[in-house]
Amino acid sequence: MQRVFFTTGGSGMEQMTVERWGMAEIALPGRTDGNPFTDRTIRGRFIGDREDITVSGFYDGNGQYIVRFMPSFTGEYRWTVSGSFSENEAAGSFTVTEPSGNNHGPVRVVGRFHFAYADGTPFYPLGTTCYVWTLQPDDRIAETLRSLETARFNKIRFCILPKHYDYNLGEPRSYPFEGTPMDSSVLTKDNFQDYTGKTEGNRFDFTRPNPAHFRHLEKCILELQKRGIEADVIVMHPYDRWGFSCMSRQADDLYWRYVIARLSAFRNVWWSLANEYDLMASKTGEDWEHYAHLLVRNDPYARLRSIHNCVPFYDYTRPWITHCCIQRQDLYRTAEYTDEWREKFGKPVVLDEIAYEGNIQHGWGNIPGEEMVRRFWEGAVRGGYPGHGETFLNDQEILWWSHGGTLRGESWKRIGFLLDVLQSVPGNGLRRLPAEWDSVCGVPEDEAMAEQTGYRLYYYSFMQPSFRDFRMDGNTQYRAEIIDTWNMTVTDAGLHRGGFRMNLPGRPYMAVRLMKA
Amino acid sequence: MQRVFFTTGGSGMEQMTVERWGMAEIALPGRTDGNPFTDRTIRGRFIGDREDITVSGFYDGNGQYIVRFMPSFTGEYRWTVSGSFSENEAAGSFTVTEPSGNNHGPVRVVGRFHFAYADGTPFYPLGTTCYVWTLQPDDRIAETLRSLETARFNKIRFCILPKHYDYNLGEPRSYPFEGTPMDSSVLTKDNFQDYTGKTEGNRFDFTRPNPAHFRHLEKCILELQKRGIEADVIVMHPYDRWGFSCMSRQADDLYWRYVIARLSAFRNVWWSLANEYDLMASKTGEDWEHYAHLLVRNDPYARLRSIHNCVPFYDYTRPWITHCCIQRQDLYRTAEYTDEWREKFGKPVVLDEIAYEGNIQHGWGNIPGEEMVRRFWEGAVRGGYPGHGETFLNDQEILWWSHGGTLRGESWKRIGFLLDVLQSVPGNGLRRLPAEWDSVCGVPEDEAMAEQTGYRLYYYSFMQPSFRDFRMDGNTQYRAEIIDTWNMTVTDAGLHRGGFRMNLPGRPYMAVRLMKA
Repeated sequence: MQRVFFTTGGSGMEQMTVERWGMAEIALPGRTDGNPFTDRTIRGRFIGDREDITVSGFYDGNGQYIVRFMPSFTGEYRWTVSGSFSENEAAGSFTVTEPSGNNHGPVRVVGRFHFAYADGTPFYPLGTTCYVWTLQPDDRIAETLRSLETARFNKIRFCILPKHYDYNLGEPRSYPFEGTPMDSSVLTKDNFQDYTGKTEGNRFDFTRPNPAHFRHLEKCILELQKRGIEADVIVMHPYDRWGFSCMSRQADDLYWRYVIARLSAFRNVWWSLANEYDLMASKTGEDWEHYAHLLVRNDPYARLRSIHNCVPFYDYTRPWITHCCIQRQDLYRTAEYTDEWREKFGKPVVLDEIAYEGNIQHGWGNIPGEEMVRRFWEGAVRGGYPGHGETFLNDQEILWWSHGGTLRGESWKRIGFLLDVLQSVPGNGLRRLPAEWDSVCGVPEDEAMAEQTGYRLYYYSFMQPSFRDFRMDGNTQYRAEIIDTWNMTVTDAGLHRGGFRMNLPGRPYMAVRLMKA
Repeated sequence: MQRVFFTTGGSGMEQMTVERWGMAEIALPGRTDGNPFTDRTIRGRFIGDREDITVSGFYDGNGQYIVRFMPSFTGEYRWTVSGSFSENEAAGSFTVTEPSGNNHGPVRVVGRFHFAYADGTPFYPLGTTCYVWTLQPDDRIAETLRSLETARFNKIRFCILPKHYDYNLGEPRSYPFEGTPMDSSVLTKDNFQDYTGKTEGNRFDFTRPNPAHFRHLEKCILELQKRGIEADVIVMHPYDRWGFSCMSRQADDLYWRYVIARLSAFRNVWWSLANEYDLMASKTGEDWEHYAHLLVRNDPYARLRSIHNCVPFYDYTRPWITHCCIQRQDLYRTAEYTDEWREKFGKPVVLDEIAYEGNIQHGWGNIPGEEMVRRFWEGAVRGGYPGHGETFLNDQEILWWSHGGTLRGESWKRIGFLLDVLQSVPGNGLRRLPAEWDSVCGVPEDEAMAEQTGYRLYYYSFMQPSFRDFRMDGNTQYRAEIIDTWNMTVTDAGLHRGGFRMNLPGRPYMAVRLMKA
C-alpha cells in the first residue's frame, strides 16, 4: 500500500503517487464539537480516465477525518473532499502507477466457481481461521504472521469484534467502541455461556467507535497484504458478552458504515457479514439483507461478500453473495459435498469450516491431521476451497483457531503442497469429472483446456488401492505421476497410452495425476 | 443337529429322538423313472402337542427322497410322509428332547430392531462375507472354519450358486444342476465381464438339480451350526456365466422350491433372496415378490428373510422382509446412517456391506482396517449390525471376501471385542440416544432398562477429544470406563455423579461407557 497523506488541510497540496490497487488516504482536520462520528459527514470523489468514484470517509479521532480510495486504473486522478466535517472543501490530484511486488489487485470470482486477482493471476484460496488474532498482544501477532508465512496460507478469517467463548474469556487489547466492559472476573469455563449476548454491566457508547481499535486492525490487514494473504473480515458474530452482537438497528448501521468506510479500500479485504449468523438471536433475515444492502451501496469496489452459517446455510443464491462460505453440516461427510453445493448455488464453494485439527472436547475441534488433509483434498479436487483451523489444548490455552500463535498440528504442513498442485492445474481451477464411483477426478474447469491438456487429478481418499486401471485415449501419450498427499511426494510413473495399469502403494491418501505428454 | 433316519421304507419304524430345534430327517426310497425332481411329490406332516406342520421333501438322487423337519417344541411327535414319489405312505413318531450345547434355537427379531435366539438368548449379528467359501477345496473350507472361530464371527453370508467375477474366474467344485459349463479357458481378468450373464456354451439341465452340490452345502451349514454361526444364505446373485441368474420362471421356481425343501429345517439358516438384486437384469420387482411369496408359503419356520442391494435399496418395509440387509450407498457416510434407516424401515438394520478391508483396486474393497472398525462401532452404537469382509491382494488370489481361507487384515481381530461389549449391554441391543451432536451415544433399546441401568455407550469415532464433560443425575453414582476400540482395552475411570469430566487420551476410536454403580 502507498498512502497519499494530506495533513495540511485545504492548502499546500502535494502531488504524490499511488500504485494501482494501492490505497490513497486523504487525512484532513475537521470539527470536533458534538459527536463527529454521528454529526458529521465526509465524502471523497476520485476521478480518473476510467472511473469516477465517490466514497464516504470517517472520523479517526483527534480532530482528524480520513477518506480512503483504491484506484483500479493507472494514470492521473483528481479528487475532491467535502462534507459537514469542515467548512473547507479540499481538492487535489495524484498519479496512479503500475503495481509492484506481489500486488496483483483484489481477488475476484472467475469462471463462475473460481478466483483470480484483478491482473488475471489465478488465486486458490487455502485459508485458515484465527478469529481474534488481531486482538492479541504484539508478540503473538508477530508469531501468527510468521506461522501464516511458513504454512503458506493465502487467506485468513478473523473478526473485527472481540470474542467471548470457551478458551476466550480474556479481554481484548481494545474495544471497537468507547466505554468499559462488565467485570469479567466472574467468568469461568463453566458459566461463560450464561453471559453470552448479555449487556448488563457493560458501558459502551455505540455512537462512538474507537479509532485506535480499527487502526490496529488495519495495520494487521496491511501486514497480511504485504505477505499476499487475503483478509476475510468477519463483521459480526454471536460470541459476545459486551453487547456488540445485539445493538440497535441505528447502532448497527453506524458500525457497518464506519467499517465499510475504513476497510473497503484495502485490496485484500473480503467481507464476511457474520460468523454463524444463525446463532445471532437478535438478528433476522431482514437484518442480514439490510447489512448486505449497505455493503453493496457503500463498498464501491464490490469486494467479495459472503456469510457463514452454524447449521442452516444462508441462501447462497442471493445476488449480493459472491461465493459460498460454508460450515459443513454433517460430522462425517463434509468436503465431499463440494460438487453438489457448486451445482446447487452456482458459485465458488469456500468451505470455511470443515472442523479443526485438534484435541479439544468439541467435535468441531478434534479431528486428526490426516482427516483434515483428506477433507482439503476431497474439496479441492471437486473444485472447492477448504479452510483450515487448529485447536490443540495447551497450558497457555493459546489455540490457533482463536488466538493464532504457533501451529502445532500436522495438516498445516501440507497446505503448501496442495497449493503447488493447484497452481499447476491449467486454467483457474478444477471441477469434478463424474468418472468413477470410487475415486474423485478433478479436471480443469474450462472444457477446452481440459481437452487440450488431458489433465486429470484422481484422488483416492482413505481408500488404499494397490493398483488402478485406466482407459485413456489410445492415440495420446500421457505423463503419469503418483502423488502421496500426506508424505508430499510426486513420483513420475512414466508415459502411457490407451489402457494401462498404475501400481500404487496400497496406502491411504494417494492421488494420480495424468497430463498429455 | 440330530437326524432321524428312516431308510427302510414304510415298515420297520425305529423310535428315535431329536433335540428341540434340531433336525429330523426322514429318508425313503422312491420312484426313479422319468425325472423325479419334476415328476414326483413328497410331503411330510409332523404333529406334536403344540404344532402341526406340513413340509415338502425333495429328491436327493440315487432313488432316495428326503423330508426334513425342525421341531419347535419338546415332546412326542407323530409323522406321516406321502406323495407320488412312492406308492407307500410312511409314518412314525419320535421324541423331541431339550436342546443341548450351543443349541439356542433359530434367531428371531426381538424388540423390533434386534435379534435373539428362540430360547431368549440375545444375538448380536457380527458377520462376515465369503461368497463362495463352500465351493472351495476341502482344506480351504477347513481353514475358513478355523478363521471364523478365531475371529468370533457369528454370521456368514454366502451363495448357493457359483460366482463369476473379478478374482473369481475358476470353476466351482460342483454345480447346482446337472450339466457341463462353457469352456472357461477363454476367460481373462480383462474379458470376464463380457461373459457375465451369458448362457452360450453351457449345457445345464435346470430340471435336474445336483444333489451332491446341495449335500456339500448342507455339510458346510452344519459345520457353521456346530460353531454357533448363522448361515446367511444368498439364493440368487448376478455374478454368473453359467446361466443360473437368467433361468426361466419355471426353472427358478423349481430351484427355489428345491432350496427351501432342503434348507428350511436348518435352524441357523437365514434367507437372503439375492445379492445385489438390482444387478440381475432379467429379474423384475414382480419376480422378487414372487420368490418371497414362495418362501413365505414353503418355509414353515419363517426364517429371517431379506434381500441385498447394489445401489437402490429394496423396499425394506415389505411385510415379508424381517430385517434390512443393506449395502451402503455412499462412499463416505455408511454406518452413520443406521439410526435413520431404523427410523425409516422400522426393522433391524444389518449392514451387510460397508466396504471391505483390503487393498484391491475397487473402492468397495480397499478401506483400511481402522475405517472398517470405525464403521462397525458407528453402526453398532446406533443399534445396527455391521458386517465384515476382506479383500487383500495376494499371489494365490485367495480373497477372504469370496474364497474364505485366512484372514489377513486388522479389523477381524477387533470383532470379538465389540461382541463382548454388545453382550454386556442390558437387554437385547442398543438404540441411539440423541444426546450430543458430536458423539454417538447408545443406550439399551428398552426404555425401562435404560433408565434402570443408566447404561450409556458414547463413541467418538475419528475424533480425538482430550476430555469430555458429562452431566448426569446428581443423585446417582455411575461407574465410568474408557474403551479403546482399536487397542481393545477397557479402563476403569472411577465413580462419578452429577457433572464430571473424563480425561481421554486424545486419540481416535475411543468410547466411554457409563453404568449405574
